[in-house]
Amino acid sequence: MVYRPGAEHRRRKGNVLSPEELIDSHWDRILAELEDFLRIPSVSTDSAHRSDIEAAAAWVAERLQAAGPFRVDVLPTSGHPAVYAEWLGAPGRPTILVYGHYDVQPPDPIDRWRSAPFEPEVRGGRIYARGCSDDKGPMLIPIKAAEALFSAEGRLPVNVKLLFEGEEEIGSPSLEPFLTEHRELLSADFALSADGAMWRADLPSITVGSRGMAALNLEIEGPGKDLHSGRHGGAVQNPLHALAELLASLHHPDGSVAVEGFYDAVREASPAERAAIAALPWDDDAYREEIGVPELWGAAGFSTLERQWIRPTLEVNGLGGGYAGEGSKTVIPARAFAKLTCRLVPDQEPDRILELVDAHLHRRLPPGVRLRTHRLPGSARAYRILPDHPGLQIARDVLRELDGRNPVDVLIGGTLPVTEAFARILGTDTVFFSFSTADEDFHAPNEFFRLDRFRDGMRAWIRYWEAAAALEVGAMAGEARR
Amino acid sequence: MVYRPGAEHRRRKGNVLSPEELIDSHWDRILAELEDFLRIPSVSTDSAHRSDIEAAAAWVAERLQAAGPFRVDVLPTSGHPAVYAEWLGAPGRPTILVYGHYDVQPPDPIDRWRSAPFEPEVRGGRIYARGCSDDKGPMLIPIKAAEALFSAEGRLPVNVKLLFEGEEEIGSPSLEPFLTEHRELLSADFALSADGAMWRADLPSITVGSRGMAALNLEIEGPGKDLHSGRHGGAVQNPLHALAELLASLHHPDGSVAVEGFYDAVREASPAERAAIAALPWDDDAYREEIGVPELWGAAGFSTLERQWIRPTLEVNGLGGGYAGEGSKTVIPARAFAKLTCRLVPDQEPDRILELVDAHLHRRLPPGVRLRTHRLPGSARAYRILPDHPGLQIARDVLRELDGRNPVDVLIGGTLPVTEAFARILGTDTVFFSFSTADEDFHAPNEFFRLDRFRDGMRAWIRYWEAAAALEVGAMAGEARR
Repeated sequence: MVYRPGAEHRRRKGNVLSPEELIDSHWDRILAELEDFLRIPSVSTDSAHRSDIEAAAAWVAERLQAAGPFRVDVLPTSGHPAVYAEWLGAPGRPTILVYGHYDVQPPDPIDRWRSAPFEPEVRGGRIYARGCSDDKGPMLIPIKAAEALFSAEGRLPVNVKLLFEGEEEIGSPSLEPFLTEHRELLSADFALSADGAMWRADLPSITVGSRGMAALNLEIEGPGKDLHSGRHGGAVQNPLHALAELLASLHHPDGSVAVEGFYDAVREASPAERAAIAALPWDDDAYREEIGVPELWGAAGFSTLERQWIRPTLEVNGLGGGYAGEGSKTVIPARAFAKLTCRLVPDQEPDRILELVDAHLHRRLPPGVRLRTHRLPGSARAYRILPDHPGLQIARDVLRELDGRNPVDVLIGGTLPVTEAFARILGTDTVFFSFSTADEDFHAPNEFFRLDRFRDGMRAWIRYWEAAAALEVGAMAGEARR
Repeated sequence: MVYRPGAEHRRRKGNVLSPEELIDSHWDRILAELEDFLRIPSVSTDSAHRSDIEAAAAWVAERLQAAGPFRVDVLPTSGHPAVYAEWLGAPGRPTILVYGHYDVQPPDPIDRWRSAPFEPEVRGGRIYARGCSDDKGPMLIPIKAAEALFSAEGRLPVNVKLLFEGEEEIGSPSLEPFLTEHRELLSADFALSADGAMWRADLPSITVGSRGMAALNLEIEGPGKDLHSGRHGGAVQNPLHALAELLASLHHPDGSVAVEGFYDAVREASPAERAAIAALPWDDDAYREEIGVPELWGAAGFSTLERQWIRPTLEVNGLGGGYAGEGSKTVIPARAFAKLTCRLVPDQEPDRILELVDAHLHRRLPPGVRLRTHRLPGSARAYRILPDHPGLQIARDVLRELDGRNPVDVLIGGTLPVTEAFARILGTDTVFFSFSTADEDFHAPNEFFRLDRFRDGMRAWIRYWEAAAALEVGAMAGEARR
């Protein structure tokens, strides 16, 4: 592999603007386009937003078509459509599969947003809207980088295939069959992901792995209908009591997961891995203040970063039942529900974990009620890329060039199901090259995206593709390690 | 005390209709009036319905004014207004204070109603609407009974004061100061309650006591804002986990309340009381089928009726937090809540019980979160009336006359805060004489009221007042026992 940072690819001819200058001169239009994109409430988990999903896919396809001589397709899946574009005009050069997603999380709780979630607003150098950071802003970066390159130079430095899916926020349930069906179409030397936020705003970093995920919803059924808690209280099991008892049984008092067998397959981190994590700049107090909790808390024997990155979790993401309005209502409700997700580390199999959780729930169900569990699609294994992958090295060089500092290797606690699926089905590793930052409140009210990172990202992607032109084709495939 | 059932008060003169005949001949109008009343969504717990509460109070006042020569007033309280009417044209005869309430429970969950909660619908001899059984139908009975008596005979057999409050469903928080302020106005020989459902549809019964109540809401606060459960999961306490653990700590595995000191003041039922309960006709299997639970369940050593009537409870009536929509959302929510009520038995003091619960919650709070508790107004002690109260005896006789069978003495698991307040502040006992039935799904979707009981109720109230005319004034006061 040969790669020289700051290579000679920039060709300015007389008064022709460079791609970077084009981005600067078109900045207002680019920002307006991002705002248009953010106005589409493409919430993938809610079937009421199906037409918004389709509108977002069409919008992305149109932007790709406008960016340059891409071949663009909106491809159906068993769920929401994927948008695909390719330009293969650089024979002998590497082919990079770009990944991002146009769907977003639900905006709930809506009443805690300072500006409406689908009415983007710029405040203090940040844009606020649902999906701006995850992943609409970041996925627009490669599109605009390509547009600038096509406009300035008529071509891209490498072959590029872009894949934008619409189901990332629901665990990409259609992705596996889609990748299998389009294995040839999507073949590439490696994947470059516009999703997967950078660790911190103040430090360049390279993500070398993520946790996996498995999700299960449960419902507890008690009486056939809501009962008056005065008349019936004490003589029947209250589904809310059963729910509390059942959920409480999922963790030990120290916070570790109490599901039998949950940790059996966990590949313990090596001393070197733990030492590398311990060497990262990290301040528990600053983190505690940032997220506003009275104290940090997690299983004993692990640091905060270890708890976030290399330990599996079982989290309740939502629960409810009975009266939720003002004041009180004396009711024993007919049912109660909870929504669970597990974050998994290498060697934990999602299906096996869901089996264990399901069995635990049924085993520990209190008397007097019935339990229904529903395993959600979209499971994903944890992912690791080899730290010396050539695509990672380019990312490190570009970030160093941009920032002046050496980026650090980090993991992410979240999940990018595509990484593991790309490795298993397409045989391609995934390099994370996103310009969102993990503190940007994605999945929460007042999600924001730093506009300087939006612009930096376009510059960086242009530099990345230029640098990747020098990579030897075929040297990067099949290095994925789980 | 002299009371002869089937007394000589009925005076038919030529073609003049009896009160009962008047009710039959005006039945369609009376039913239409009930439907009008039910269309007013007078939900007392929700401040959004404040104007509906006022509309309902005005509607009741208007119906009272139309019923006869009552002096009618809508009296302000520190909360929702009370409607008061009196007719004192029977000097030397007893004075009866009639009680009912015009406010209703919230209709949630609305999607489980077969017809809209505030669009009354008659199906199979029942009327369906929120509040029809609790307590709009039953409280309309004495108004219509008085109307028929005034119309047929120009007078009532006894002096009658009617008090309809608008805060029963929120625990009557303004009642105590209201009663204290209007102690003279409301003085009576005893109270006759149109609220307090009859035990069963197939058996006449007399209610001789009710459980008390105390309510507390709690909120658990974790991070300052919702967090991504992938990024942060494992390193911070999840408020939903803390909620489950905290609520699970409130009960022992056998279902008894685990709050320290909760049972300390409980006056244990006497062997005679337990024997009387055991002698009542009761079928656990039929009850289990009626309410649709897989099995009955409660603290060991007590029968179902004992668990409902003479044992205190702590029930979670609602809880929530995090994502409740379709699919999943990977969030650690900033907060979670729960709503608790206790049902109390004689000698338990509501304030003391709330102190104990509050202390337990703070003592058992898991690490990493904050707890806020909020004690709700409207506490009430348990209530008992002496089984040989003369007002009870009339009720027994009238029910026997109506049904042909001897009514049984029962308790109710629910709470009527007025009973205990009437005894303590006004010195009057309360006789329950309601014609709703405990199976009519009040506080639940599809609340209904049996229309034959609506008509029976009017006949019974007429007979009751007629019979009470023979009671000796002054013999009934101050017999209340808690």
